[in-house]
Amino acid sequence: MRIAVDAMGGDHAPREIIAGALKWTRENSSTVLLVGKDTVIENELKHFNYDSSRVEIINASEVIEMDESPALALRRKKDSSIVVATKLVKEKRADCLVSCGSTGAQMAAAIFILGRIEGIERPPVITAIPNLSGNFTFLIDLGANVDCKAKQLVQFAYLGSAYANLSFQIDKPRIALLSNGSEESKGNAVTVEAHDLLKQQTSLNFIGNAEGRDIFNNYADVIVCDGFVGNIVLKTIEGMAAFIGEAILKETGTVPKFMQKLDYTQVGGAPLLGVEGISIVCHGSSKQEAVLNGMRIAEKSFLNDIVEGQKKALSFMEENA
Amino acid sequence: MRIAVDAMGGDHAPREIIAGALKWTRENSSTVLLVGKDTVIENELKHFNYDSSRVEIINASEVIEMDESPALALRRKKDSSIVVATKLVKEKRADCLVSCGSTGAQMAAAIFILGRIEGIERPPVITAIPNLSGNFTFLIDLGANVDCKAKQLVQFAYLGSAYANLSFQIDKPRIALLSNGSEESKGNAVTVEAHDLLKQQTSLNFIGNAEGRDIFNNYADVIVCDGFVGNIVLKTIEGMAAFIGEAILKETGTVPKFMQKLDYTQVGGAPLLGVEGISIVCHGSSKQEAVLNGMRIAEKSFLNDIVEGQKKALSFMEENA
Repeated sequence: MRIAVDAMGGDHAPREIIAGALKWTRENSSTVLLVGKDTVIENELKHFNYDSSRVEIINASEVIEMDESPALALRRKKDSSIVVATKLVKEKRADCLVSCGSTGAQMAAAIFILGRIEGIERPPVITAIPNLSGNFTFLIDLGANVDCKAKQLVQFAYLGSAYANLSFQIDKPRIALLSNGSEESKGNAVTVEAHDLLKQQTSLNFIGNAEGRDIFNNYADVIVCDGFVGNIVLKTIEGMAAFIGEAILKETGTVPKFMQKLDYTQVGGAPLLGVEGISIVCHGSSKQEAVLNGMRIAEKSFLNDIVEGQKKALSFMEENA
Repeated sequence: MRIAVDAMGGDHAPREIIAGALKWTRENSSTVLLVGKDTVIENELKHFNYDSSRVEIINASEVIEMDESPALALRRKKDSSIVVATKLVKEKRADCLVSCGSTGAQMAAAIFILGRIEGIERPPVITAIPNLSGNFTFLIDLGANVDCKAKQLVQFAYLGSAYANLSFQIDKPRIALLSNGSEESKGNAVTVEAHDLLKQQTSLNFIGNAEGRDIFNNYADVIVCDGFVGNIVLKTIEGMAAFIGEAILKETGTVPKFMQKLDYTQVGGAPLLGVEGISIVCHGSSKQEAVLNGMRIAEKSFLNDIVEGQKKALSFMEENA
């Protein structure tokens, strides 16, 4: 297996990214392709012991910064690390890619280079949030898909269902729609319309609306929302985890181990779905453990062939959506 | 001071509501008006010791249930506890009211009985969320105002600013707009439009977009969003607090004291703003401590004359909004 890693993306690039990628090579027999400025990567590698037969450097002379417009940056910086890494997947020189850089640029690269799966208008990002059962609840979309149409939310539901089923062996994943109340009349106009469309999807196990608290109580396997709401919810969870961790440390002098599960510099890795290849989005503030985690998710996605699985799931989508 | 309490609203009504209201009478010299079925309230009162000169029972023969349509229920149940309690405020027989019942019905009663403040299209609900500085961040709206227009978000900003200033003595409250990124280009269409309108409000201390994590890091005093997003965020926070509390209890055998601050059966009380009277919304699952808290917030709102304060703040609203 060959994983391309964007060595230049993220707050802690390149050091922590490279450290995570090298940890990965110690866990298994895969090969890592470090994508970025070769001189920078070569210099960084001097700090580590590693099996050089399993690490390749792929030069990319440019970096897309977090504050650049994704579409513009993609056109201007054709030799940026995210473009080069995505092309490696397109050309089958890598099986998947992992990046901690600009999510917007990663999405745009996936759309323009890998292409969207037929039937998908906007590729969503999905992530796993720990819940009370000791398992996870998947939240989709966390990307940049603001102002979604109802039918796009239905598409997200199919992709999320396929992902939970394939990568986490959840049989008939319970799909819920995030809203401000459990009753089907609750929600903004798009949510109410999406609820109605989802009810008609006979091949989805749609269980109705979920509320914010249901993210944590194992009510659903996959909770669907647009990227505006999903981003706000995810960052609220991150901020609250940091806040509670700090307050408990102050009070008791120690942080419960459990809180590590919620530290988004340590865990993470969110697949970009709906595209013709595997592209894993990691948090911008990822450190090596989070990079390693993202690579494990990339491996799982590849071994379970999530691209084919998504296509199969979408073939059952009812015409109305 | 006279506070009307809807004795019939909430998961733990009437016992916990009455217990909270009676606690209040022991803290100060105010009078409590318990609104609901008189025979039920009389029976409950037998379980308590209290100063009967400071407790009045106001009969209301009906109760609006959580799952009823607020507008319909309001028309049909003219003798419901929330209608009778709101009328007490309108008729100046009470200075304010507190309810743990249906938020939608409480809002509808406030709109139709108290009336909206001039310039306000939809009355929002505001609440305080503890943050890292040891203070609070106010989040507005948490009500039922889904599909808001940009100018309605601007109205919420004025009301939130006035409330933070009057009730919590915050000078020039920092106002932020909840979005999926800090840059002003980030957001759904309504958020981007609201950002533009807010920038033009010279009498507001608008500091730009806030992200979900900013709720906890003392970035802003008041964070504005529509009721759909606000409800989801608040319930996510509640659910996460319960989840973390339970997980820590399992790991360490005890829950840090700090976590009590985040227990929404113990704390709470969210003023409904933009109406011609003081109506405090409490969580449906409130127990006596939360009811007591709601009454403290009611008192604070009354003593600081938040209705006049909101009107004054709105007089500075720029024409564009």
